[in-house]
Amino acid sequence: MSAPIVTAGLLVIGDEILSGRTKDVNIAATAEFCTDLGIALSEVRVVPDEEDMIVAAVNVLRTGYTYVFTTGGIGPTHDDITAEAIAKAFGVDLPINAEARAILEARWNETGTEITNARLRMARIPEGAELIVNAVSAAPGFRIGNVHVMAGVPVIMRAMLEAIAPTLQGGQKVDSRTVSAAVGEGALGDPLAEIQSRYDDVKIGSYPQMGHTHILTHLVLRSADIARLDEATAEVQALVDALHAKKNITLPKEPY
Amino acid sequence: MSAPIVTAGLLVIGDEILSGRTKDVNIAATAEFCTDLGIALSEVRVVPDEEDMIVAAVNVLRTGYTYVFTTGGIGPTHDDITAEAIAKAFGVDLPINAEARAILEARWNETGTEITNARLRMARIPEGAELIVNAVSAAPGFRIGNVHVMAGVPVIMRAMLEAIAPTLQGGQKVDSRTVSAAVGEGALGDPLAEIQSRYDDVKIGSYPQMGHTHILTHLVLRSADIARLDEATAEVQALVDALHAKKNITLPKEPY
Repeated sequence: MSAPIVTAGLLVIGDEILSGRTKDVNIAATAEFCTDLGIALSEVRVVPDEEDMIVAAVNVLRTGYTYVFTTGGIGPTHDDITAEAIAKAFGVDLPINAEARAILEARWNETGTEITNARLRMARIPEGAELIVNAVSAAPGFRIGNVHVMAGVPVIMRAMLEAIAPTLQGGQKVDSRTVSAAVGEGALGDPLAEIQSRYDDVKIGSYPQMGHTHILTHLVLRSADIARLDEATAEVQALVDALHAKKNITLPKEPY
Repeated sequence: MSAPIVTAGLLVIGDEILSGRTKDVNIAATAEFCTDLGIALSEVRVVPDEEDMIVAAVNVLRTGYTYVFTTGGIGPTHDDITAEAIAKAFGVDLPINAEARAILEARWNETGTEITNARLRMARIPEGAELIVNAVSAAPGFRIGNVHVMAGVPVIMRAMLEAIAPTLQGGQKVDSRTVSAAVGEGALGDPLAEIQSRYDDVKIGSYPQMGHTHILTHLVLRSADIARLDEATAEVQALVDALHAKKNITLPKEPY
């Protein structure tokens, strides 16, 4: 399997995701972002606003993957503890960063906003980190080592992803093909496994589609080798065509 | 902090979530399910269809939390490897389960579906596990130890959660109150931290609301102690009222 060599781990930080109060959308956004850049998102973890758990997860992910992305916990309130946790994970101090403070003060002056201790929390950046600009609400994220610390608010998170995109080294671009089958996974499983066994360099995934009036399966093939991808896709398409023909079906009623 | 004593970890299994092809909805469903039962969902991991990663994650989560829930990878195709991985994590065999086979064959007979090796994969259940019924498509999930293995298809996943609900021991029910503030987090941070410092038994979360014409912050208080929760909520409400009055605002234009 010609695995992409550039990998990433995502750490979603926030009690509100785990309580169900907020529905996360940053996992999907990061997954699409990585796929577009040829980076294999290899693992996601969601942890609460608890320092020990953030530190442990960051330290595991940053040694296991090329890049780590974190979302959440960089605002001005007492439950925003991501910057402390990252500083602790890297064993560095967390001073007020002059550049971050200048960016924030410029925005605060514009809007006549008082400088408070709470607001200044957002200018604390781990020693040795570089800022990630926040086009939306000024308060910056930061990159330290291979860890990119970003906001949890989706619109800010997406803006920060755009900001860091040019700094990331993409991997081998993996292309994909989809074959739609009007039969269930049960009918496809055996011959599909046989095809997969002959294509080490193509990953074949099978995704049942529920909630249709008939069951339909999407077979998704992925590979960095386009010629092999097209070859495997042709085989899968032939398999599906044969199953359709054999069963003479357009609207099957198979369970899977 | 009177932490709920019943905890859970969720393991979402599937390449399609990590590639961005499928947007996960099972995290939010499980989070709400747990909260409703008074179970604290403490961690979520998303891993690809890779045996080593599934085994490692299951073994960490099942020793760390009261319950583990997994979603995905129990269908009939070659990329459905969750049952193998769970059997491996528990060090048990994975035979064809007579009860599972009977359930599946009954459904297959009804629909005139041929029994294939691929379909029979769905009857393989780790030794010592109990079935979790699947009202939607027959193929069962299973529980082994404290690990509940369920389907990835959301409608089946939700049906399985309903099926296991009566078997779960709920924790202390945590109640919540929300105070809405027409000011940003920057103005709230310092006094809110002071209130939090006096209420160890109430967890106060602050959630900025973006995408409004004005910034509005939701302050969410959670506690198992209703009297203390209401006390803390009154303090937070008084703080917000004072900030509103002081600034004489209904539509602020504060950054945070």
